[in-house]
Amino acid sequence: MIEAIVFDAYGTLYDVQSVEQVVEKKFPGRGAFITAIWRMKQLEYSWLRGMMGSYADFRTITKDALAYTLGIMGLKADDAELESLVDGQNRLTPYPEAAAALTSLSRHRLAILSNGSGEMLRALVDHSGLGRFLEAVMSVEEARTFKPHPSAYALVQRCLGLTPDRVLFVSSNGFDVSGAKSFGFTVARIVRVSPDALRRELAEPATVGVGGMFRALRSQQEMIGEAPDFSLNSLTELGPLAEGGFSVGA
Amino acid sequence: MIEAIVFDAYGTLYDVQSVEQVVEKKFPGRGAFITAIWRMKQLEYSWLRGMMGSYADFRTITKDALAYTLGIMGLKADDAELESLVDGQNRLTPYPEAAAALTSLSRHRLAILSNGSGEMLRALVDHSGLGRFLEAVMSVEEARTFKPHPSAYALVQRCLGLTPDRVLFVSSNGFDVSGAKSFGFTVARIVRVSPDALRRELAEPATVGVGGMFRALRSQQEMIGEAPDFSLNSLTELGPLAEGGFSVGA
Repeated sequence: MIEAIVFDAYGTLYDVQSVEQVVEKKFPGRGAFITAIWRMKQLEYSWLRGMMGSYADFRTITKDALAYTLGIMGLKADDAELESLVDGQNRLTPYPEAAAALTSLSRHRLAILSNGSGEMLRALVDHSGLGRFLEAVMSVEEARTFKPHPSAYALVQRCLGLTPDRVLFVSSNGFDVSGAKSFGFTVARIVRVSPDALRRELAEPATVGVGGMFRALRSQQEMIGEAPDFSLNSLTELGPLAEGGFSVGA
Repeated sequence: MIEAIVFDAYGTLYDVQSVEQVVEKKFPGRGAFITAIWRMKQLEYSWLRGMMGSYADFRTITKDALAYTLGIMGLKADDAELESLVDGQNRLTPYPEAAAALTSLSRHRLAILSNGSGEMLRALVDHSGLGRFLEAVMSVEEARTFKPHPSAYALVQRCLGLTPDRVLFVSSNGFDVSGAKSFGFTVARIVRVSPDALRRELAEPATVGVGGMFRALRSQQEMIGEAPDFSLNSLTELGPLAEGGFSVGA
């Protein structure tokens, strides 16, 4: 019996690519490239610091990943400019269907569990207005590690008082789907890029640019041994799934 | 006082891109793309499984990463074909300067510490003929995790009987440099792609292809808080460094 639905934030409720316009304005012609490398390095640094046991909060990691990205391109930005771009992560746009989907799920306890620092998540949720749907906004910073480490997912039980079998976890991020499933949650994956669309995009490898590479690396289900219980094309499909009592195979 | 010099294998002594020809022969026009995504996913899966605590040996991870890569492109390969391509990882070409560099370091104890499984590493070292220079070939499989987890680096002490201050660790991989330095080794980074060359390659982001993206993500020093003691342009520079007694700033 599912009581709570816990959402990933970046890429699931919020479009991480929506920061691209801000970056493009600052570095014309380079917005897409910087945004893609920045996001990939941000995730890498969370995994590497998790492995090394040298935790730093997600804002620091996000800033370091941006400094790396600008650095390899030979672009200059002072500390205030870096901070300003990082602040853009607190104003990401929710996916268009997010508010309606959360409304349709109001009979459940709803929450976020995210790699973001508590401060980043408060700003993000306040700015987007999604806070009114959410009972809790959980940051992994309390566990001093990142997803997919089991200690990160364990915060859900500590905060909501629910064992994993009472929780549906929702994410579009392959590593997060695998981590949440491995931890013991029922998991719904939001498929933001269909396998067919990606296959078509990669049909001519010589012409694949940064967007295609990003989608090749980040948009599909991972092969690390844990498949989601549900694969949905958008957050909107969660409502009917809840109505049907989350029956597997629905 | 440095007694042993311990090398990373993939990307440091052996050119991971040298498998590209085999892949290209099997999938014409797609060799570069497949090889780049395959390598990136192979590393990701090692980090993610390390974070999740769900270890699988590096051969399994390598095969899964290849299956992922072919899958997103809609390419078919049966199990025997996957295995055959993975076997190609055991026949990687050493960098041209590797044998001469190891010869020049013969007054030190020399070893490999690699993510590769014991079986993969034995095959790789035998095939390339570098085994004659090496006292030990250490696989992280004994620690059941991957670099940059500290347990992986701790195998050096267990196997060679040396505390970290007696070890120079050599790697071209940014995450490995950071992990080894964080663990306590003296670290030499082999700079396979210079910052200047990468900057020039990324000057026109719209024209950057898969090779440029790979180098953007994988060839530079990471910003996760640990800088190497030495940055060298090739393995050849290790000889003079050893002659000079590894004085920092040399």
